[in-house]
Amino acid sequence: MTDFQIVEHHQCFEGKQLFCQHHSTVLGCAMNFAVYLPPKAELLDCPVLWFLSGLTCTEGNFIVKSGVQRYAAEHSMIVVSPDTSPRGTATAGEDADYALGTGAGFYVDATQAPWSKHYRMYSYIIEELQQLIVSGFPVLAHQQAITGFSMGGHGALVLGLRHPGLFRSVSALAPICAPSQCPWGKNAYKAYFGSDVETWSVYDAVQLISQGARHSTIYVDQGSDDEFLGEQLRPELLQQVCNQNGQDLRLRMLDGYDHSFYFVSSVIGDHVALHAERLQQG
Amino acid sequence: MTDFQIVEHHQCFEGKQLFCQHHSTVLGCAMNFAVYLPPKAELLDCPVLWFLSGLTCTEGNFIVKSGVQRYAAEHSMIVVSPDTSPRGTATAGEDADYALGTGAGFYVDATQAPWSKHYRMYSYIIEELQQLIVSGFPVLAHQQAITGFSMGGHGALVLGLRHPGLFRSVSALAPICAPSQCPWGKNAYKAYFGSDVETWSVYDAVQLISQGARHSTIYVDQGSDDEFLGEQLRPELLQQVCNQNGQDLRLRMLDGYDHSFYFVSSVIGDHVALHAERLQQG
Repeated sequence: MTDFQIVEHHQCFEGKQLFCQHHSTVLGCAMNFAVYLPPKAELLDCPVLWFLSGLTCTEGNFIVKSGVQRYAAEHSMIVVSPDTSPRGTATAGEDADYALGTGAGFYVDATQAPWSKHYRMYSYIIEELQQLIVSGFPVLAHQQAITGFSMGGHGALVLGLRHPGLFRSVSALAPICAPSQCPWGKNAYKAYFGSDVETWSVYDAVQLISQGARHSTIYVDQGSDDEFLGEQLRPELLQQVCNQNGQDLRLRMLDGYDHSFYFVSSVIGDHVALHAERLQQG
Repeated sequence: MTDFQIVEHHQCFEGKQLFCQHHSTVLGCAMNFAVYLPPKAELLDCPVLWFLSGLTCTEGNFIVKSGVQRYAAEHSMIVVSPDTSPRGTATAGEDADYALGTGAGFYVDATQAPWSKHYRMYSYIIEELQQLIVSGFPVLAHQQAITGFSMGGHGALVLGLRHPGLFRSVSALAPICAPSQCPWGKNAYKAYFGSDVETWSVYDAVQLISQGARHSTIYVDQGSDDEFLGEQLRPELLQQVCNQNGQDLRLRMLDGYDHSFYFVSSVIGDHVALHAERLQQG
């Protein structure tokens, strides 16, 4: 179950950037993931930050483009970067739309055929990969945080809100805040869950909060020049539901930033520092 | 001459990452280059760091993968990243070998047909792009430094040694130290200059130093696990010629690092800080 191979490794900021592969029984396919081990992890167990990526990404984009290793080394944080969907499962239509299927798992367990057989990224992250990381790497299992970008920001909010005991600190970068209320989300959720929108709510941060889910302060960074801000991301809906339900939210609107890794790289250091501090406190 | 278009721009660490295009009269083709403007450049002229890239790279690899913007913003340094060769010139054989022609300009002016018509990256960098950058961006023209990686490290050493008044601070990351004495260099220089190795020496840092070229302290970082260390890079030849000729060299061998951007990203912050300090002193 927790077997994996290290397929690539690089010294980076005195620690190790690993690229790993394993067979996922949950997803029924081979999966890649990346793990950064800070220098301190050679001697001692360290806290873990999960980073969930956005549409079209693999486990690699964030690792190559964000510069996260510098901050992870500085704060002695292990960083786990999963892939964004199953790959090569021959599910009908999985490569027809960049926002559905391959590269677009949305961190959900699909219930509708043909997706329900392989598209189970929620259980994959929360159970199988969680178990693998805790057993295979020098992690402090009670000090885990989660963040992500865009579709991965949605994933971080949902997984964090549903598992506050596991992910004790939650943040998101330009997240899809309300997938039930944006074109990307509606398109994917209709395929993954069918037309009954009631069934969508367990994978929608705004719905979860309106239904009583709570976490300690949620930190969200959002660029003001993000080309997807108004139609797809909709942080105003998250702000509104948090206000109405007493969920503490620190939403930071950052002037001039767009929806690219230039934004991610500019803010990821703040998020690593924030999670490191909160995990130490907790 | 100095006309250019900004084809892409991104807010990054409170500054601007620009991707630009112009027509190069020296190379006879369209060329891309990238410029990072730190926040301070909105108000005041800033020093410039030139970064020359390695084999197969474009202007983009370093910009996307190195994380340089964080340090450039911190030290108020403009960073210029040129492409590594002319592109699409229909020169016979330019796409046949990753280490010759496209992506492999070696920062030289070729003298042999068919390369001599377009492959003139030395003059392009030192004259045409230099002029464009100084006239088109808010730079302190008397505060310029140069560095680079691999083939670009070779370029930085050669351009720095030949123009110490222009590039007042020089460093290199895992440079090809002696192109006349390694397979990559011999292969390219035979094509670009012919078989008379005497003609190669003006583009070979080790030869230049042995013939009297000097600069203030040259800083070189080299990973100990670099797969090209022994055959292609040969820092021991640079160390030897510096020792024999009284050229100050600080060669830092870094344990465990390979020939990848994980190495570049781990050390580029040190180089930005070093150049910023040396340019302020000078």
